[in-house]
Amino acid sequence: MRFATLRIDDTLTAARIEGDRAVLVDASHAVDAYLRREHLTEIGEVDARTAHYARVSPCPAHILCIGLNYRSHIQQLERPTPAYPTFFAKFPSTLTGPRDDITLPGISDHIDGEAELAVMVGRRLSRADVNEASEAIAGYTVANDMSLRDWQHRTTEALQGKVFDRSTPLGPVLVTPDELDDAHDLTVTFTVDGVEWQRGSTSDLLFTPAELLAYCSTFLTLEPGDVILTGTPGRTSAAETTLSPGRTLVTAVEGIGAAVNPTTADPLPDTRTLWQECRSR
Amino acid sequence: MRFATLRIDDTLTAARIEGDRAVLVDASHAVDAYLRREHLTEIGEVDARTAHYARVSPCPAHILCIGLNYRSHIQQLERPTPAYPTFFAKFPSTLTGPRDDITLPGISDHIDGEAELAVMVGRRLSRADVNEASEAIAGYTVANDMSLRDWQHRTTEALQGKVFDRSTPLGPVLVTPDELDDAHDLTVTFTVDGVEWQRGSTSDLLFTPAELLAYCSTFLTLEPGDVILTGTPGRTSAAETTLSPGRTLVTAVEGIGAAVNPTTADPLPDTRTLWQECRSR
Repeated sequence: MRFATLRIDDTLTAARIEGDRAVLVDASHAVDAYLRREHLTEIGEVDARTAHYARVSPCPAHILCIGLNYRSHIQQLERPTPAYPTFFAKFPSTLTGPRDDITLPGISDHIDGEAELAVMVGRRLSRADVNEASEAIAGYTVANDMSLRDWQHRTTEALQGKVFDRSTPLGPVLVTPDELDDAHDLTVTFTVDGVEWQRGSTSDLLFTPAELLAYCSTFLTLEPGDVILTGTPGRTSAAETTLSPGRTLVTAVEGIGAAVNPTTADPLPDTRTLWQECRSR
Repeated sequence: MRFATLRIDDTLTAARIEGDRAVLVDASHAVDAYLRREHLTEIGEVDARTAHYARVSPCPAHILCIGLNYRSHIQQLERPTPAYPTFFAKFPSTLTGPRDDITLPGISDHIDGEAELAVMVGRRLSRADVNEASEAIAGYTVANDMSLRDWQHRTTEALQGKVFDRSTPLGPVLVTPDELDDAHDLTVTFTVDGVEWQRGSTSDLLFTPAELLAYCSTFLTLEPGDVILTGTPGRTSAAETTLSPGRTLVTAVEGIGAAVNPTTADPLPDTRTLWQECRSR
């Protein structure tokens, strides 16, 4: 099954996507609809091609993102193979819809995208083994771990470069595992105005989705609707240094779909120097 | 003014603390009461000495924690003075009440506490300068940034050692800035069964609370109820390597109060090896 969270008359509503039909159901978002999939009532229908898609999981209790996880990318960077996955967090305020504009913060000179397979948690999970974790996967979706590289590398923790407002598209659809031939062999791409900046395959993942869920469930209790971004492949030679306003970002995962996000300029002033002037007192 | 979030008949209710009296008001938690402080209706009264205190801000949009921020601690560790504050996140699920038991995860052999002054955000804040940030401070409270040191140092990101369930007490009270003689000269201590593990003064903070708010407001929009943990002082020679069940943790900030949390053993199995066995396939 394929579920979406749609925005209709400014309210979030869940839909089951069947070809070009978006069948509206009595659930508040895609993960809610997944959880109640045997007991849904149909309440309407809209055109799935023109619907306003919102983020698949509107307010996850936990959004966990892994650093390096593609073997070829790790080799490209000449890093040792990590023994453990490296995690940082995002906030619900960091998420945005898979058709929404992304405002590029004027405070950064180095804004980049990272196409990722996102795995959605379908039940509460604590200290799970990998088999149990595998059964707890609600499904998969597409995410772009948009990053301010200069802020990401200011300190030893990536967080401040990873959480700018409404920057991380999540969607368009939650696809249940049975819909995919093999979640471990999907092509992941990121294109900017039609030029490919990234390409990889989930067959190259060092830590699989189920392993990541099991690992995270060891240090906290995962909840339904939680999201784990599984990492991003290496960049192509065509990738530019930074994104600019007026571009179209297409983040795609084979068998799931694509987030298509235009970039826009930041209306707010660049206040980087304000804080630094204060510090130099 | 001093505000608390109390748990009464299993529901969260706000109270204004006046000496030994906790005056219940028509707000859902301490920050909500602060925001509506001119328009509160009194709805009852309980004994402030025996009330069940819950976390001051039950579900912040953002919980941001800074790494090294005490000058003496930075010198003690022989680190260079950082140009920028280093942030990692916690989740709402990481918070707990200032009188609640803290379950020590059996997955760690090195569990430690970190006494901290926490600053609470009182209004939406984006790209603020330090003066504007200072005016946006709702008040201060006490937090303990409980940490699994072994997990914290497994990778380059601290997150996985910082977010175990219901581990970070936040409270007992939100104290508005006018109640404190000087938030920049408060003694911060952490004691375990009466033995002092940490002692410092907020006069030693490299980045002040208002500077931290201004800085964070540059890379995301802060919301009312958000929490910034301002860092922790160095450890005393009496500090032990790890915490164990059956201890009493007292985390105190002068002029605000103390979180008093007993530690308990973990009823769940230690599943560390499960995941590693799977990985070595």
